[in-house]
Amino acid sequence: MPILQPLPDRLLLGPGPSNAHPSVLEAMSRPLLGHLDPDFLALLDRLKEGLRTLFATRNEMTLPLSATGSAGMEAALVNLLEPGDDIVVGVNGVFGGRMAEVARRAGARVTTVEARWGTSLDPQAMTEAIARVRPRVVSFVHAETSTGVCQPVEEIAARAREQDALVVLDCVTSLAGRPVELDAWQVDAAYSGTQKCLSCPPGLSPVSFSERAIERVQARSRPVQSWYLDLSLLAGYFGGETRVYHHTAPITAIYGLAAGVDRALEEGLPARFRRHDEAARRLVDGLATLGFEPLVEAHERLPMLTSLRLPESVRRQSEANVRARLLTEHGIEVGAGLGPLAGEIWRVGLMGENARPEPVDRLLEALRKLLA
Amino acid sequence: MPILQPLPDRLLLGPGPSNAHPSVLEAMSRPLLGHLDPDFLALLDRLKEGLRTLFATRNEMTLPLSATGSAGMEAALVNLLEPGDDIVVGVNGVFGGRMAEVARRAGARVTTVEARWGTSLDPQAMTEAIARVRPRVVSFVHAETSTGVCQPVEEIAARAREQDALVVLDCVTSLAGRPVELDAWQVDAAYSGTQKCLSCPPGLSPVSFSERAIERVQARSRPVQSWYLDLSLLAGYFGGETRVYHHTAPITAIYGLAAGVDRALEEGLPARFRRHDEAARRLVDGLATLGFEPLVEAHERLPMLTSLRLPESVRRQSEANVRARLLTEHGIEVGAGLGPLAGEIWRVGLMGENARPEPVDRLLEALRKLLA
Repeated sequence: MPILQPLPDRLLLGPGPSNAHPSVLEAMSRPLLGHLDPDFLALLDRLKEGLRTLFATRNEMTLPLSATGSAGMEAALVNLLEPGDDIVVGVNGVFGGRMAEVARRAGARVTTVEARWGTSLDPQAMTEAIARVRPRVVSFVHAETSTGVCQPVEEIAARAREQDALVVLDCVTSLAGRPVELDAWQVDAAYSGTQKCLSCPPGLSPVSFSERAIERVQARSRPVQSWYLDLSLLAGYFGGETRVYHHTAPITAIYGLAAGVDRALEEGLPARFRRHDEAARRLVDGLATLGFEPLVEAHERLPMLTSLRLPESVRRQSEANVRARLLTEHGIEVGAGLGPLAGEIWRVGLMGENARPEPVDRLLEALRKLLA
Repeated sequence: MPILQPLPDRLLLGPGPSNAHPSVLEAMSRPLLGHLDPDFLALLDRLKEGLRTLFATRNEMTLPLSATGSAGMEAALVNLLEPGDDIVVGVNGVFGGRMAEVARRAGARVTTVEARWGTSLDPQAMTEAIARVRPRVVSFVHAETSTGVCQPVEEIAARAREQDALVVLDCVTSLAGRPVELDAWQVDAAYSGTQKCLSCPPGLSPVSFSERAIERVQARSRPVQSWYLDLSLLAGYFGGETRVYHHTAPITAIYGLAAGVDRALEEGLPARFRRHDEAARRLVDGLATLGFEPLVEAHERLPMLTSLRLPESVRRQSEANVRARLLTEHGIEVGAGLGPLAGEIWRVGLMGENARPEPVDRLLEALRKLLA
């Protein structure tokens, strides 16, 4: 039996991947260029500039890292941390916890500031920890994909900067779906993914590093533990006049990301953010009629990922069973809860191209049938 | 100006990427499934089985790693090595040297066994170093892409095994282009790339780990330094009954690899290897008439990558200039020499779908015009 079989159609309303736009898939079917071809390097330069616009930054070191968002997280932390360095990590979900784990593996002394899953980080608690520890790095998640909570970036980042700490921000789920303002917020390292609000397949991690972050990397006393993610080596290929081979860039994925960024910029970011907000409102209002209640308070709730407490009508049939029927009978994927929220919530993503009325209405119609 | 612009057609006869087959590009334009979708997990299982056939292994832990071949190298080394462990690395080109650097960054004590670039590793010298150092790991490159040299795997691996060392083998350029026999050779960890003899875009690294390698990982006294590449975490998603989310698998790249492996298995590996051998002979014979001389002795020369000393007709015009004209006037990419061989050689790849008479003849015709 061939490995590649006919694939079912899915409406991807989980925590990502979201459905890729046809223009992205068309881009990914184009013939390859070599990774040192002048035409490819010119495309890469235009892509870096497009990513700067999405991140709202002038950071020269803004590029598509050749692995998924989790590798972007690892790149940010292992470049900035040396063994024995202190880091303060905000943890109120899976991805904050992952940051702490990655930092530990880089030999850092990790101080976590916890908040209950489903609530946002407390800037006051972060500020106190930053003042007490005086860490090299302060790290937290903008849009926590495991809960649907948005953190107040500006305030925490300002306190970190006052203590001369570098700020690392996870923008995997927020980028291109709500405002991300690296320069205004004074963030030093940020990373994202392609499979959320950019409507590209997973596989790359757009990253951006400030001048201060680059200086820190250059001042390291020992090499970055990861050769693949070493920023000073990546700089030789992704920047500078002469492009030095480091690894072979994933040409096709980069074509896809180029098409995705083109679409986002063509639509315009304010319109795109508005579209995400409107779709989320339609979803919450519609699901309320079926008894679903948002986990997160409205003022700290993300638009592109909504966590919902399950009504009795779902619990009665077992939530896993309803999700499975949504998938197989209606072709719609939604996400399960993770960690302490497993079995308690669903996570519904309306990301990128899916942040429109039609996907919401399709989900509502399917649920009405399944829960009747 | 949009980031994605019309792209020129290229015949990719460098050290990789090679041209992707149309069936691979078609696969990559298919709509996405979620990374936990039962249909996607079934595809992943079939792909793992296909990769086992390519690697000639029964290793359960055989999977497509979510980053390029260089990350595959890093995964093999950082999982098997702990700080202070000894490793013997064969170095006769860029990629052997890279192995040594990656091992150093993992805290290992590195003993290199060097051979002149363009010649193969000396099994006797490797054997002596293995007996002297008694390392935890012995590591070398099957097909050295920087020179076009093939190493004698079986003999070195047998000596390593006698000393109870784990064997790591770089199969980036060899896999699916000439025999790779992990189980027969008793290799413990191997990695490859998709953009060489599999005629897929770059972006994934097929890897395979033996039971002995897994036992070593499980017996570690400290966690693997890389969270992204940690084999015990990857095992939770890629294997086992319940699939645990680790990172989001690059769905589209995996579709492409599935189509590439399907094609290789449909053709049959012996026929595919023969096709690579025949194309290489045609190339060497044809280029001899233009004064190009193979760098590597026939008995240790790779079929899919041929290094050639440049004739006076090329040097006269400057080799970089001739390569640039090949690219812009004839749409053909060939590779430059690296390190001590920069300016001395070209590297011509006939990989996967390009290992056929037509690409060879197109290159010969173009060169005849340029060097007339």
